[in-house]
Amino acid sequence: MGSDSDLPVMQPAAEFLKSFGIPFELTIVSAHRTPQRLLSYATKARQRGIKVIIAGAGGAAHLPGMIASLTTVPVIGVPIKSSNSLDGWDSILSILQMPNGVPVATVALNASKNAGILAATILGVHDEKIHEKLVGFKITMESDVQEKISKLKKDGWQNTFD
Amino acid sequence: MGSDSDLPVMQPAAEFLKSFGIPFELTIVSAHRTPQRLLSYATKARQRGIKVIIAGAGGAAHLPGMIASLTTVPVIGVPIKSSNSLDGWDSILSILQMPNGVPVATVALNASKNAGILAATILGVHDEKIHEKLVGFKITMESDVQEKISKLKKDGWQNTFD
Amino acid sequence: MGSDSDLPVMQPAAEFLKSFGIPFELTIVSAHRTPQRLLSYATKARQRGIKVIIAGAGGAAHLPGMIASLTTVPVIGVPIKSSNSLDGWDSILSILQMPNGVPVATVALNASKNAGILAATILGVHDEKIHEKLVGFKITMESDVQEKISKLKKDGWQNTFD
Amino acid sequence: MGSDSDLPVMQPAAEFLKSFGIPFELTIVSAHRTPQRLLSYATKARQRGIKVIIAGAGGAAHLPGMIASLTTVPVIGVPIKSSNSLDGWDSILSILQMPNGVPVATVALNASKNAGILAATILGVHDEKIHEKLVGFKITMESDVQEKISKLKKDGWQNTFD
Amino acid sequence: MGSDSDLPVMQPAAEFLKSFGIPFELTIVSAHRTPQRLLSYATKARQRGIKVIIAGAGGAAHLPGMIASLTTVPVIGVPIKSSNSLDGWDSILSILQMPNGVPVATVALNASKNAGILAATILGVHDEKIHEKLVGFKITMESDVQEKISKLKKDGWQNTFD
Amino acid sequence: MGSDSDLPVMQPAAEFLKSFGIPFELTIVSAHRTPQRLLSYATKARQRGIKVIIAGAGGAAHLPGMIASLTTVPVIGVPIKSSNSLDGWDSILSILQMPNGVPVATVALNASKNAGILAATILGVHDEKIHEKLVGFKITMESDVQEKISKLKKDGWQNTFD
Amino acid sequence: MGSDSDLPVMQPAAEFLKSFGIPFELTIVSAHRTPQRLLSYATKARQRGIKVIIAGAGGAAHLPGMIASLTTVPVIGVPIKSSNSLDGWDSILSILQMPNGVPVATVALNASKNAGILAATILGVHDEKIHEKLVGFKITMESDVQEKISKLKKDGWQNTFD
Amino acid sequence: MGSDSDLPVMQPAAEFLKSFGIPFELTIVSAHRTPQRLLSYATKARQRGIKVIIAGAGGAAHLPGMIASLTTVPVIGVPIKSSNSLDGWDSILSILQMPNGVPVATVALNASKNAGILAATILGVHDEKIHEKLVGFKITMESDVQEKISKLKKDGWQNTFD
Repeated sequence: MGSDSDLPVMQPAAEFLKSFGIPFELTIVSAHRTPQRLLSYATKARQRGIKVIIAGAGGAAHLPGMIASLTTVPVIGVPIKSSNSLDGWDSILSILQMPNGVPVATVALNASKNAGILAATILGVHDEKIHEKLVGFKITMESDVQEKISKLKKDGWQNTFD
Repeated sequence: MGSDSDLPVMQPAAEFLKSFGIPFELTIVSAHRTPQRLLSYATKARQRGIKVIIAGAGGAAHLPGMIASLTTVPVIGVPIKSSNSLDGWDSILSILQMPNGVPVATVALNASKNAGILAATILGVHDEKIHEKLVGFKITMESDVQEKISKLKKDGWQNTFD
Repeated sequence: MGSDSDLPVMQPAAEFLKSFGIPFELTIVSAHRTPQRLLSYATKARQRGIKVIIAGAGGAAHLPGMIASLTTVPVIGVPIKSSNSLDGWDSILSILQMPNGVPVATVALNASKNAGILAATILGVHDEKIHEKLVGFKITMESDVQEKISKLKKDGWQNTFD
Repeated sequence: MGSDSDLPVMQPAAEFLKSFGIPFELTIVSAHRTPQRLLSYATKARQRGIKVIIAGAGGAAHLPGMIASLTTVPVIGVPIKSSNSLDGWDSILSILQMPNGVPVATVALNASKNAGILAATILGVHDEKIHEKLVGFKITMESDVQEKISKLKKDGWQNTFD
Repeated sequence: MGSDSDLPVMQPAAEFLKSFGIPFELTIVSAHRTPQRLLSYATKARQRGIKVIIAGAGGAAHLPGMIASLTTVPVIGVPIKSSNSLDGWDSILSILQMPNGVPVATVALNASKNAGILAATILGVHDEKIHEKLVGFKITMESDVQEKISKLKKDGWQNTFD
Repeated sequence: MGSDSDLPVMQPAAEFLKSFGIPFELTIVSAHRTPQRLLSYATKARQRGIKVIIAGAGGAAHLPGMIASLTTVPVIGVPIKSSNSLDGWDSILSILQMPNGVPVATVALNASKNAGILAATILGVHDEKIHEKLVGFKITMESDVQEKISKLKKDGWQNTFD
Repeated sequence: MGSDSDLPVMQPAAEFLKSFGIPFELTIVSAHRTPQRLLSYATKARQRGIKVIIAGAGGAAHLPGMIASLTTVPVIGVPIKSSNSLDGWDSILSILQMPNGVPVATVALNASKNAGILAATILGVHDEKIHEKLVGFKITMESDVQEKISKLKKDGWQNTFD
Repeated sequence: MGSDSDLPVMQPAAEFLKSFGIPFELTIVSAHRTPQRLLSYATKARQRGIKVIIAGAGGAAHLPGMIASLTTVPVIGVPIKSSNSLDGWDSILSILQMPNGVPVATVALNASKNAGILAATILGVHDEKIHEKLVGFKITMESDVQEKISKLKKDGWQNTFD
């Protein structure tokens, strides 16, 4: 992530990866305040064994795109609605609208959990264990909704807030 | 893709994959006009051996998100600025702003080539041959720019249009 | 609705229908988390006797459009300004900008009450009782305003807050 | 429609209704230039036997909402991207964002064909013949896509433009 | 104004007019809930001696434009950021983007005080007393700023919050 | 107007005023390139007998607001969609969103004709001759629409383009 | 700045300049309420020895551009998200979109600190002492991030909020 | 500039600097395709004697901000409305919305000439010759407008197009 102030937004990604048993590191790389670290982090990522990078940033968010320009590891970008950002529009467009040749896999505003899931999905292309967990995750999601449907039916829509 | 009218926008993805020797199929699945085909295509994708799905659509673009809800294969979404779309804003938001649990790896408006590159990057996590081609692709991109720099220097900026 | 978190926004629709004595069911169908249920719910709606479907969803809101692709029952879409949404712009565009062939009757952001009224209006095309209630509803609306005009006149605009 | 200049955009609605054998009238009612006609047209619509009104307008598009305030007939609004409009955003928001009590069933920008289909869907709630035509329409739409899929398969994506 | 909920936003206009001794009436005319009243109010305004109309409304704000279509009295429109509105964008565009032939003098979002000043400016074209008050108003505005400049200079910018 | 390139957009205002026999001058005052002229033009306007000022400008359009700050003559602002502007959004917001104390009567994007009509409406508050012309103008507008309605009815909507 | 209410937003610029030992004055110049002061302030700025002007304003923010039209001193514009502004979009566009010939060096919304830094950077082109402070400032920024990285590593991401 | 395709947009900057006799180099540095060159170009800029950098880029435009993070030379950013960009909104927000600590002096969309003028203005703080040229430039701009005013007066507004 680009700043320690992004941690509350990025934490769900970490929690998801932990729940799947996928090892990860969570650190700060600021494109604008630590550009040299950006360069060294991104260029060494693959040889360090990193398979997917999740980069979250807000405002004129250059971190995900700059990492993507420096590595062949897939980069997932999380636009963050930081206090400086224009309701998140700047964060989204700065990450999404990358030029031809250097894609960033962008997820929804503040959707770091989805970034974690997407990382697992990418790893699951070749890792059957992760893939099975994803299948289980989808089933749980579905049954959670099913449960809420039953509860709503039992309680009635007028009593749901009580 | 969601419609045959999307073909001109999606063709660069096909051309990129072909240039990398990555086998692919290019077909039409319309979320709104062939919903049953959507269901069957998405649910069978993984068992058919498909490793990444690139889905392009415009306007209220539901195709990428609906496929992602039906499969554990990573889905790359290409927002298309179709004649019906609001300068592409609807396409982008309908694909990008997926709810928690079901990510779509979104690329820039009309950026199907980047979708192809992202697919290669995802496959390159485990496929060394594809990875090497990506390294070569990056080097070529860089040297193409270098060539243009030399040409600009030689010709002078005032003669570049002559 | 697409999620139980949408209930507070959707409740006014239920309350309006109840006040008109129009039977209805209120349940959860998630396009992204329960796609199979979406398919089965939408395809069976007409044979189950459902005459109008009101579908509310936020963010990349695919529920109304996907239902509309699967049924010949009129679908009213309610864009919801959920916590994930970009001030509701994503919800609106994902529901409104449907391609040719598959319309969704979209109402204003969070305007579930209007969705209920629109449903009654559609039923009122052939149901004279509902139509009469709509006439009465319009008269009441008008006289409510009239009352406020009188109150404002009596109290004076400077005392209205007291 | 609000102006004769809207005719090219509204014609697909007329053509669709004609193809379904649904009788209709197509005329001009300008909210701003013929407000008295607006009043008389809207208040008499139901007693004249009109079952659905499709109203298209651009810019500060007041026609659909004002008709809806004056009748209990369902009103479908078509935002038109006229030469005066701000890329259609004004047309969309002026029609969609109606206050509580007076809904307009809004369709996508310039989507007059969808307005025609929605009108048929509303009539199809009680008219079995129209409903059957809608079922047929959906099947044709699906088979048209199917045909394009076959053609794309046969021709190959590289030869589609030749 | 279109609704009694708009009163807090519209009150500064009333207060300004009162401070200038310009007689006015403040009432509710809802374009959507009392369309007949709208018609009668607007068409009779000039013969009742009304010289300027200030109309405030939010969301799909049709009130100012519909009044303008029904009278030759100048109409000043105040876009209101109501709870239903899309951050005020719908209010602005619905009032501002009037078609050729029917202008509305639009002021800034929620700027009812400016609507009052503009009304005084319009009246001041022929009414020398009002004009003199406007001259005085501008002088006061300027000297208020001058006072703040002096205070800032005396206190120092670091002590201004103490 | 702020630049001679704005003339095509502003000409309809001149033509409308000419058709009403209202004397006017049409000249260029650039807020950014001739700020001294702006000051002198605006401060002397009223004593020169000018009763209404129409100011058109595009991009960061400061002309209307700066004139309004310097005079007690009513200022009508015309946002112009110039080649430099962001689809006109910058022009609209720079003119419309004036602070409390200094209103500009803003009309729609490029709507210089409406600016002319609004000027006539403001003059018509006290000038009965101009007012009568406005009444006539409204009647003509209405009968023009009526004629188009008759033509459409006679020709049929399918033959209107032939 | 255009108003004393902008002081909380503009204070970080003053604090930054003070920390760098760069002499400055902080005052109010309102383009709309004190246009004569604007003229005199801007035209005399250079002869008074002012080397850079930082101008902050919100809404239809004309201050930075009008100063730039009246002086050859570089003008840095700070768009302010004031209570009157449309989420800051009006402030940004009114300052940024200046016509050819009169540039304003615009910084991010509310980013007065960056305006201070930019002023120092401009002065640092010829002032080696200021330049050295900028080099130090960048190093401090970098080491601050480095410290946070270490802290995050030591504490672990799960304990950071404790 | 970020790409040779940006040359037509950036050329006016070069022409302006040439007309002022300010020496400059015009070259390509792509943040995404030549990140190493970006690093080396930016870090060496000051010691090479470069006093101001003008960086133009479109879409997710990271070039100006990344250069600013790597140098203490003032950076002027030109948002370019390239074929890939979302009407330029992405270009503007990616350049303008820089975080605290790393400002970019942003000019209007495609306004490379203004970037050149701003560069001259920055140099003119200490270089009296450049400053004098700026004074002359402003006078010429003003007299050009004056000439157009005279021409418009002589020809009449109706004959200007002939």
